[in-house]
Amino acid sequence: MKFNKHIENIKTYEGGKPIELVVREFGIDPKDVVKLASNENPNGCSLKVQDAVKNIVANMALYPDDSMMKLKAGLSRRFGMDDENIIIGSGSDQVIELAVYAKTNKESKILTNGVTFAMYEVYAKHVGCEIIKTTSTDTHDLEQFYTLYKEHKPEIIFLCTPNNPTGDASDAKEIFEFISKIDSDTLVIVDGAYMEYAKAKDASKAIEPKELIDKFDNVLYLGTFSKAYGLGGMRVGYGIARLDIIKQLYKLRPPFNITTLSLEAASVALEDEEFVKNSIEMNFNEMKRYKNFANEQKIDIIESYTNFVTLCFEKPKNSSKIADALLKRGMIVRDLSGYGMNAIRVTVGKPEQNSKFFELLVEYL
Amino acid sequence: MKFNKHIENIKTYEGGKPIELVVREFGIDPKDVVKLASNENPNGCSLKVQDAVKNIVANMALYPDDSMMKLKAGLSRRFGMDDENIIIGSGSDQVIELAVYAKTNKESKILTNGVTFAMYEVYAKHVGCEIIKTTSTDTHDLEQFYTLYKEHKPEIIFLCTPNNPTGDASDAKEIFEFISKIDSDTLVIVDGAYMEYAKAKDASKAIEPKELIDKFDNVLYLGTFSKAYGLGGMRVGYGIARLDIIKQLYKLRPPFNITTLSLEAASVALEDEEFVKNSIEMNFNEMKRYKNFANEQKIDIIESYTNFVTLCFEKPKNSSKIADALLKRGMIVRDLSGYGMNAIRVTVGKPEQNSKFFELLVEYL
Repeated sequence: MKFNKHIENIKTYEGGKPIELVVREFGIDPKDVVKLASNENPNGCSLKVQDAVKNIVANMALYPDDSMMKLKAGLSRRFGMDDENIIIGSGSDQVIELAVYAKTNKESKILTNGVTFAMYEVYAKHVGCEIIKTTSTDTHDLEQFYTLYKEHKPEIIFLCTPNNPTGDASDAKEIFEFISKIDSDTLVIVDGAYMEYAKAKDASKAIEPKELIDKFDNVLYLGTFSKAYGLGGMRVGYGIARLDIIKQLYKLRPPFNITTLSLEAASVALEDEEFVKNSIEMNFNEMKRYKNFANEQKIDIIESYTNFVTLCFEKPKNSSKIADALLKRGMIVRDLSGYGMNAIRVTVGKPEQNSKFFELLVEYL
Repeated sequence: MKFNKHIENIKTYEGGKPIELVVREFGIDPKDVVKLASNENPNGCSLKVQDAVKNIVANMALYPDDSMMKLKAGLSRRFGMDDENIIIGSGSDQVIELAVYAKTNKESKILTNGVTFAMYEVYAKHVGCEIIKTTSTDTHDLEQFYTLYKEHKPEIIFLCTPNNPTGDASDAKEIFEFISKIDSDTLVIVDGAYMEYAKAKDASKAIEPKELIDKFDNVLYLGTFSKAYGLGGMRVGYGIARLDIIKQLYKLRPPFNITTLSLEAASVALEDEEFVKNSIEMNFNEMKRYKNFANEQKIDIIESYTNFVTLCFEKPKNSSKIADALLKRGMIVRDLSGYGMNAIRVTVGKPEQNSKFFELLVEYL
C-alpha cells in the first residue's frame, strides 16, 4: 500500500529504554536497575499529587474536562498570563508537533542547534520539511543562528534553553536580543523544559514567558511537568504565546489530548512548590559530586543548568561501549553517539544512585 | 503570522460539555447533574482497575514503557494477533489521526457515511483533503459507498460499525463483501469502537479483527477502552492491521503517547471481563426502557447496537431547543442538529439516570 512519499524514509523514533526492558533483556533484578537515562525526577512525584490522583481514580471513566479550566488557571496564575494564551499538550512534545504541522510543509525549513532535543527534527520529518542546523554541539551559537536564518529564512527557529541533551543554557539577554532581529512571520520557539533548574542556579539564564510574549508577537514558549514536577509518565506540557498563535495550534489539537488523571496531577503539582524546590536543591547538591568525579577522572563535563550532566570522552574511550557496558550492569544512561558526540548523558539521581554510577563508571574508564 | 493555508478555515472542534461546565454555567449542584452525552460507561470503571492504578501512582514520575509490552500482550491474546499487528493510540482518535496523516494530503479524498464519527472529517481537514460523504443519516448504504468509491477513488474509506452517533450497525457479511471489491491501495478503516455491544446483541454484526486482517491487506481495525471498558478519561485506543500498515503509522506516532497510568489501567481492564459483561447486560436491559418510552411518546428511535440511543424528532419539535432545555435542568445529552439531524443522542445510563431523563424529556415534548 502506498503512503505519503515524504514519510517513506522516516525511521521510527526510539525513546530511552524503560527499566522493564533491561530486566527482560539482561535478567537483572528490577531493584538493582538504576535508570539515569530520561531525566526523570529521582524523587518521584509529590505525595500531594499522588493522594489527589488516588482520590479520583473512579473518574477514569469520564472524559477529561477539555477546557482544562483548573490546570490553565494554575498556569496562568503562575506565569501572569491569561488562560487564552495557554495550550496544553501531551508533553511539550505535542505542542512542538502542533506548531510544526500548523506552520510548516514540504517546502519549509526549520532551524535548530547542531545538537538539541530530537523531537524538533522528528516532527519536521513528519511533514517533510528541511532541517537546518548550526554546527554547535553545546551552547547555542546565536551569531551562527542569525547567519543561517538570513540565508534560509526558516519558518520556525527552535531555541532550547537549557539545551537538551547538553545541559548548557543561553543568557536570557542574548535570547531577547536575537529574537528582536527576527522577522515577525518566523515563529521562534523557546523550549524551557528545564527552565526551573536554570532559574534556580543562575538568574541570568532565567526567561519569563510573560516578558517574551509581551515583547514579541512571534514567540511560543514551552514548558513541561515531566522534569522538575516529576510527572514524566503523565504527559503534560504547555505552550504560551499570543492569542493568534494559540488559536492556530488549537485548530490542530486533538480533543481530549490530556487524560483525566493527568489534568489533576499537573494541577496539584503546581500547588506543591516545596516538592519542586527540594528536588532542585538536591539536584544541584548532587551535581557537585559529578563535577568532582569528572575532575578527578579527567573527564570533560559540560556546565549544566538542568537535572542531568553530559560527560564527554576522549578517544580511544568510546561512549557507546561505555553505555552498553553500564547497561549490562543495570545502569541505564543515554549514549550521545547518535548526536555525533563521544559522550553520555546522565540524569542526576539520588545520592546512592549517583554513588553507584561513579563506582561502575570507573571500571570502564 | 502566516500559517499553512489549508488550516485557515478550520473551526476548532468542541467536544461534549463536561459536568464541571454545566455546574459553572447554570449553578447546578454537581450531584444533580446527569451526563448522558459522551457514551461513557455509567458503571464507571472496574474496581480492579482502580486498585491497580492506585498501587502505582508513584510511577507517575517515570516515562511510560513505550514498547507497551503488557498492553500489547493482552490485546494480542484477546484478538489472536501478534504484538506487531497492533498500535496503541491516545484514544482510537489518534490512530485515525496517524492514518490520515500517513495516507492522505491536500490532493487526497476520504469517503465516509453521511452521518458518522466527527473525527474522520476533523483530521481530514487538518491535512486539507477532500471529504466525500454518502447521503445516509443512519445505516451505511454500502452500494452508495461503492458508487462513490468508483467515482472518487478515495485514499481512505471509513466504515463505522456500529455507527456513531446513530447507533445502528452493518452486517459483518456485507462489510466483508464490500471490502473485497475495494482496490488494495485504498485503506479501509473499520471503526469498532462500540463493537463489544454489537457483538453481545447480535452475532451477525460482530466483526473479528483477525478475520478481517487475515483476509484483507488494506484494512485497519479500530477499538477503544473508552466505552465498554469504562476508561474514557484515560485515552487508550488501538489499531489492528497487517505489519506494513502498522509500520507506517508507527513512523508518525509521537513517542510516549500513552501515560504510565493509562497503560496499566487498560491492561488490567482487559482482565476484568466480568465488569464489561455486566455493563453490557445492564445497558441492553435499560435500553428496553428507552424503546418503551419512545413507543409510548411516539418518538422515532434508531435500533441501537451501542451504549446510546438516538431519538429523532418530527417538526415542530426541535432537537436543539430540547437539548438546551434539558441542559438547564442539569441533564446533558448530545444535540445532533450539527449533523443535519433533528435528533438527540442519549447515553444509556443507570436505571435512576434514565428515569430522570424520561421524566424531564416528557416536559418538553
